[in-house]
Amino acid sequence: MANPTSSLRLSPVDLDEKIKLGSKAARIESSLDKTELEAATATLLARLSELQDAFHADGRHALLLVLQGRDASGKDGVIKTVYGAFNPTGVHVAAFGPPTPLELRHDFLWRAHQVVPPRGMIGVFNRSHYEDVLAVRVRELVPEPVWRARYDHINTFERMLTDSGVIIRKCMLHVSREEQHDRLKARLDDPTKNWKFRLEDLKDRDRWDAYTDAYREMLERCSTPWAPWYVVPSDDKAVRNHLIARMLVETLESTKSAYPPMDEAVRAAAKGFA
Amino acid sequence: MANPTSSLRLSPVDLDEKIKLGSKAARIESSLDKTELEAATATLLARLSELQDAFHADGRHALLLVLQGRDASGKDGVIKTVYGAFNPTGVHVAAFGPPTPLELRHDFLWRAHQVVPPRGMIGVFNRSHYEDVLAVRVRELVPEPVWRARYDHINTFERMLTDSGVIIRKCMLHVSREEQHDRLKARLDDPTKNWKFRLEDLKDRDRWDAYTDAYREMLERCSTPWAPWYVVPSDDKAVRNHLIARMLVETLESTKSAYPPMDEAVRAAAKGFA
Repeated sequence: MANPTSSLRLSPVDLDEKIKLGSKAARIESSLDKTELEAATATLLARLSELQDAFHADGRHALLLVLQGRDASGKDGVIKTVYGAFNPTGVHVAAFGPPTPLELRHDFLWRAHQVVPPRGMIGVFNRSHYEDVLAVRVRELVPEPVWRARYDHINTFERMLTDSGVIIRKCMLHVSREEQHDRLKARLDDPTKNWKFRLEDLKDRDRWDAYTDAYREMLERCSTPWAPWYVVPSDDKAVRNHLIARMLVETLESTKSAYPPMDEAVRAAAKGFA
Repeated sequence: MANPTSSLRLSPVDLDEKIKLGSKAARIESSLDKTELEAATATLLARLSELQDAFHADGRHALLLVLQGRDASGKDGVIKTVYGAFNPTGVHVAAFGPPTPLELRHDFLWRAHQVVPPRGMIGVFNRSHYEDVLAVRVRELVPEPVWRARYDHINTFERMLTDSGVIIRKCMLHVSREEQHDRLKARLDDPTKNWKFRLEDLKDRDRWDAYTDAYREMLERCSTPWAPWYVVPSDDKAVRNHLIARMLVETLESTKSAYPPMDEAVRAAAKGFA
């Protein structure tokens, strides 16, 4: 019997084709209903937890997931649901807000570098150094030659991390303009969420096309063999979580992590431990 | 109908009585069987997740849980199960291993201070600055006048943190010598766990009574009104998790966290958002 979820799999962006960032690309067909899909995702999440233990023990690699996406695209939701499956001891979440005065006095990669997960750990960036070619570009916070030079800086930085054992996966959560509208509207009406809004967040909706251009160039310039970008259809939250959980399972499985052998001195001492 | 779990509640150590750290104190009677207890705990864990959201939004306090206990007393298990219930975005886990050469060149509180959770965050120390009056004392790593001065330093440090909005709760996971034996034996036979052992861990079992003295003095000297110590009967893992989850629920509820109001400029802008 064919795996009914086999079509639900992410592929890195294909640099030979124009990257689709329209409304249609924000949805993907699934032959499963929501209940079936969430059950399949629960299996993936249990597997993630299992894989994490050996990954942590093995200690050869770190895993870093970079999450980017427009407001309300689901970055927090992915962390809560997918990263919620991991043992908190081995997880590090870094959220990137507007840079502090100290951060602004440093190069743009400085604050990202500080929170790269060490080997054995599974990290996630909620926004990242990519804001420096996204919001910074669209809001014209630095001159074009400055942000334009950053694509190469990012690629070499990520190459260096990869050479040091960090496995990098990057997901752009892609929502349609209509879906974002509905989610923002719901949030504005929800007192447990509307306190978080900044005026600038709403203004960004008026810059939709400028952001689309910035996302496209980011994907084209910075999806590399060592640190691929995935465009995640995110209008449906259950599909989004499933796709990311599956990609992470496959990534962790590919490391073939193994438990280290027992220390010889401990082995000898353990013999006397009846 | 009385709450069947009402007897399962932690109280801070009672400084008017001699603290019991024998085998009997490692167990507590529960009228619930394991399935009922785990169901009751699941309810508490769901409540924790709910309380965390408002706690994070409110941002007036941080929560710091300090976990201490002998090897195999269940510190990792508490983090995995109880802290696993929280949204990873708002959690920070700090594990304290043997100090690095740099840490040894600093005062003993330096490394702890760096990982105190900021307001809005829920942190946990897996071992802590208390190792400096426990392992350091028992293994005679510094002269007695040095470690003896530390109780007061710890109390004033924790007082300062409390004054800055950090809510501190401290749990000593108390296992009996028999239960520890069984857990260590099982771990030594388990290839997914036995690689973690250090010879020193096994030797610590021969120093059982010296550790008991060190724990007792720590509890007596450092259980304060602002940062109480709880002795958690931990021979039964389900009971242990229930007790800690319940204490955390009560602690978070006591903060009466509330969501901040919506920004007025956003409220005005939102009116035009149909």
